[in-house]
Amino acid sequence: MPAKSPVLVDLKFDPAIVAKALETAFADRGSINLADPTSKSADLSHVDYALLWKPDADLFQRARNLKVIFSGGAGVDSMMSVAGLPDIPIVRFVDRSLTTRMSEWVVMQCLMHLRDVQGHMRNQRQHVWAPQHGPEAADVTIGIMGLGVLGCDAAAKLKVMGFNVIGWSRGKKQIDGMETFDAGGLDAFLARTDILVGLLPLTPETTGIYNASLFARLHRQSALGKPVFINAGRGKSQVQADIAAAIRTGILGGASLDVFAIEPLSADDPLWTLENVIITPHDSAVSEEKALMRHVEEQIARFERGEPLQHLVDRSRGY
Amino acid sequence: MPAKSPVLVDLKFDPAIVAKALETAFADRGSINLADPTSKSADLSHVDYALLWKPDADLFQRARNLKVIFSGGAGVDSMMSVAGLPDIPIVRFVDRSLTTRMSEWVVMQCLMHLRDVQGHMRNQRQHVWAPQHGPEAADVTIGIMGLGVLGCDAAAKLKVMGFNVIGWSRGKKQIDGMETFDAGGLDAFLARTDILVGLLPLTPETTGIYNASLFARLHRQSALGKPVFINAGRGKSQVQADIAAAIRTGILGGASLDVFAIEPLSADDPLWTLENVIITPHDSAVSEEKALMRHVEEQIARFERGEPLQHLVDRSRGY
Ligand SMILES: NC(=O)c1ccc[n+]([C@@H]2O[C@H](COP(=O)([O-])OP(=O)(O)OC[C@H]3O[C@@H](n4cnc5c(N)ncnc54)[C@H](OP(=O)(O)O)[C@@H]3O)[C@@H](O)[C@H]2O)c1
Ligand SMILES: NC(=O)c1ccc[n+]([C@@H]2O[C@H](COP(=O)([O-])OP(=O)(O)OC[C@H]3O[C@@H](n4cnc5c(N)ncnc54)[C@H](OP(=O)(O)O)[C@@H]3O)[C@@H](O)[C@H]2O)c1
Repeated sequence: MPAKSPVLVDLKFDPAIVAKALETAFADRGSINLADPTSKSADLSHVDYALLWKPDADLFQRARNLKVIFSGGAGVDSMMSVAGLPDIPIVRFVDRSLTTRMSEWVVMQCLMHLRDVQGHMRNQRQHVWAPQHGPEAADVTIGIMGLGVLGCDAAAKLKVMGFNVIGWSRGKKQIDGMETFDAGGLDAFLARTDILVGLLPLTPETTGIYNASLFARLHRQSALGKPVFINAGRGKSQVQADIAAAIRTGILGGASLDVFAIEPLSADDPLWTLENVIITPHDSAVSEEKALMRHVEEQIARFERGEPLQHLVDRSRGY
Repeated sequence: MPAKSPVLVDLKFDPAIVAKALETAFADRGSINLADPTSKSADLSHVDYALLWKPDADLFQRARNLKVIFSGGAGVDSMMSVAGLPDIPIVRFVDRSLTTRMSEWVVMQCLMHLRDVQGHMRNQRQHVWAPQHGPEAADVTIGIMGLGVLGCDAAAKLKVMGFNVIGWSRGKKQIDGMETFDAGGLDAFLARTDILVGLLPLTPETTGIYNASLFARLHRQSALGKPVFINAGRGKSQVQADIAAAIRTGILGGASLDVFAIEPLSADDPLWTLENVIITPHDSAVSEEKALMRHVEEQIARFERGEPLQHLVDRSRGY
């Protein structure tokens, strides 16, 4: 039996954490970690599998005979624009823990807007006792854009918390106890939405989709007073100047943003200080390195047993 | 058929909201609202039912022939200490909306500690981009003290969010997929608990139960670093000086408090400004007046059909 091909690893994550995870991963075949100085000039022409996040520009010239690419993250937008990307299967990262963590963030942000945490914290800073009697979850409709792995999990949990939940995706979806809309139903979907949750991948179609025109079409008679925008998909799907303007003019009553067109968000960006805007630094659902390695091991095992790979990216759709 | 007895109402809530709710409530029998100046000297000796929250001191002398008392809130501790309380059935307020709203608050507070919202907000105020990679819900055990209507609903929703949930109550409970402890199992329960959620009624046994000795027995190797205390039951169950000291000395890593020994919390109380302490002004689950009136109408109808009243207070236990 010929020796198994090692896994090429080029992950622009925290190098110490990646190195630690690789100590125990891929025990049967080994790995070549490009973050390791001794690998800088290694021959990669024989390598079958690559696990990548923002890989080096010359990577696909060096690793000419790859059979499968594994994305280090759930989104593959950055991968799709890498020069020389070969026409081979791309597997994205789908993981229970990542999904659970995203739903923690989404449910928490929706509850924080429902229960006016920002207003409560302003009162707390001033030592002001001022009970509020806002709407309950059942009075509020959350519209989720993107009904994939993440959107569906968040939807189910938001429903358990009592919210009305509706959803929008490219193709029409059948989901129990939830009204859904397809691409053509966007206006009807927005007109019903009090809290908009963005969980879309970044593609040419979704670039800049969260803009002034979209915010203006959200439900205006929300039990919350004004609609709220929440985004944990990708930053380039949002027009940040339009978010800031919509908050200032009262088109939006609040926002929670985990992703930004340029990250890190610049220290002088106006979004940091706008009223009722909650900023998190793209940490709503961090890829956990050990879970990532386990997922790649599983998919390689499937592939070598001749079974179909899971979580494949559709090149024509771009996600 | 004799005219039906009107419902005596003495609710020290917002008088305008109570008056508004009474416009449509009790249509078949009417009501006597003691907040109404014309009722100040009304003859109450013929009244069968009273709906009360912090009633006037002479109320039970004036309404001498009551058959049933309805509490305006879920907790009846203030009722139990009213002078001259007659030995008749007391029905407490249990309502889907109130329960849902309490679970919104509890789940939100647990997620806010899990996801270090306070740390994120400090970074946001300083325009600092610092992604965190904390534990996920499955790494954290929430221990709920009080497995009644509220504790059980919160437990089920916390489990959906991925937390481990354990519970403690006077008598041993059988709850699917959840480990429970009875009064004698308190130490074992505390030793496993990373986030303690208090949803106990106030009785002589639960007065001052959340104190330094209890905090010191919580799990010290929490994935969150330090244990967290959350209370939405009653303020007199907590020793506030002990909470402040435990936060200052690092016995507790954070707290969320909706209830206080004396409300409103005084403006110079140290709790307002302690790090990682979240204060809400007893508005985690406000009694909704219309739902309250509907609940009383339903119980009176049951009583007059000869069916047993629901949500009866057990005088000997005090809740
Ligand atoms: N902030 C973070 O930390 C973080 C972490 C993980 C992931 N993410 C982002 O979240 C995104 C979603 O992840 P996922 O796993 O849920 O992806 P997924 O399973 O591929 O689902 C994507 C969803 O978006 C819909 N969609 C795509 N393009 C559309 C369009 N043009 N119009 C309407 N709907 C469209 C898809 O519709 P169909 O169902 O009809 O195909 C699908 O429902 C990822 O791509 C990534 O960018 C962010
Ligand atoms: N902050 C707010 O806005 C707000 C709103 C509503 C209610 N509340 C408070 O929340 C409390 C709980 O409401 P609920 O509807 O869930 O009450 P409930 O259904 O009567 O449940 C009370 C629970 O506490 C347990 N318990 C009572 N005394 C105990 C003791 N000495 N040792 C151990 N366990 C004890 C009971 O044990 P057993 O099951 O063995 O009897 C039961 O599980 C209310 O009493 C009220 O004070 C606060």
